[in-house]
Amino acid sequence: MQLHKRDVVDAATSLLDSYGIADLTMRRLARELNVSPGALYWHFANKQELLGAVADRILESVGDVSGGWRDRVAGTCGRLRDALLSHTDGAELVSASFAAGQSDAMARILTQLSGAAADAGVDPTHAELAARTIVYYVLGFTVDEQSRLQWDAAGAELPDEQSVLSDDPSARFEFGLRLLVDGIAAHSDSVVGGRD
Amino acid sequence: MQLHKRDVVDAATSLLDSYGIADLTMRRLARELNVSPGALYWHFANKQELLGAVADRILESVGDVSGGWRDRVAGTCGRLRDALLSHTDGAELVSASFAAGQSDAMARILTQLSGAAADAGVDPTHAELAARTIVYYVLGFTVDEQSRLQWDAAGAELPDEQSVLSDDPSARFEFGLRLLVDGIAAHSDSVVGGRD
Repeated sequence: MQLHKRDVVDAATSLLDSYGIADLTMRRLARELNVSPGALYWHFANKQELLGAVADRILESVGDVSGGWRDRVAGTCGRLRDALLSHTDGAELVSASFAAGQSDAMARILTQLSGAAADAGVDPTHAELAARTIVYYVLGFTVDEQSRLQWDAAGAELPDEQSVLSDDPSARFEFGLRLLVDGIAAHSDSVVGGRD
Repeated sequence: MQLHKRDVVDAATSLLDSYGIADLTMRRLARELNVSPGALYWHFANKQELLGAVADRILESVGDVSGGWRDRVAGTCGRLRDALLSHTDGAELVSASFAAGQSDAMARILTQLSGAAADAGVDPTHAELAARTIVYYVLGFTVDEQSRLQWDAAGAELPDEQSVLSDDPSARFEFGLRLLVDGIAAHSDSVVGGRD
């Protein structure tokens, strides 16, 4: 039977959801699919590439957001957070793929956010940096939120006082996003008038 | 010979620097120290606690920063980034310890940043959220930067276009920080007049 790339990504995503990123190895995946590890390397040159394909699968639901630049930032980031939280270790896997430059979906999200920053009036050389700042915040927040959620689910006894979950995490997430949006607006005011 | 807590943290930090976070296990650490794993559990109830102690060691150099609130944010975050980058997997280890609420040093840094946000005029209920937003940005940025640095050092061939290192990473880091500081200033203007 022929092994399709799509089937490999399906199986990898399901391994991730069941056992987490530490158990997502090429060897384990090959066993799951009843193929030799070599068959996987026909589709993916290395594990980074495979993780990138899983990241893109996780981020499929993010899509394009329309509206003014503030709505686009809020909408894209809200969907990004939801997508990361809906898979075991999703935030960690996507962070790693982003760092390795292996996720087309993250590149697309960066482009969307850069476009929003440019529409806010941030000059072109800084729009991508503004977009990256937003992405780092979303990844940093969601890695923290998801670690805590997963530990709590596993019954780990951890001190409460530093937990991101001690209050409504969505409200906390949106507060930080608003701070960044305000910063972009303030930054762009001093350069060119932003379009809303 | 008596095993001091300080010696355990020394050995753990040195294991981390030589082999990375994946090889920092209680078993390996016990072998390194020529003691039984049980001797370690006398000092640390579990691995999370040990990682928290290593995080605090890594962050020893951050200390208190004086000056206006903007300088305190910039100074604290710059030192935090330097501290994370000076140990193998430092950003990942400190992120995990922060999520687990195990790092006293991160709690102290959060308090410092909350104080700076409060001095900027952010109301007390939001000052800690503003501080967390800054911390998530610094951790998100530095995890990305360090992953990339370590992969490049290991000779991994990765696409350049998404790399945080393609330009001066310090300038990129400071740009994002400025965006957040501007956001805090803008946010606080609408609430109370900020003190500079």
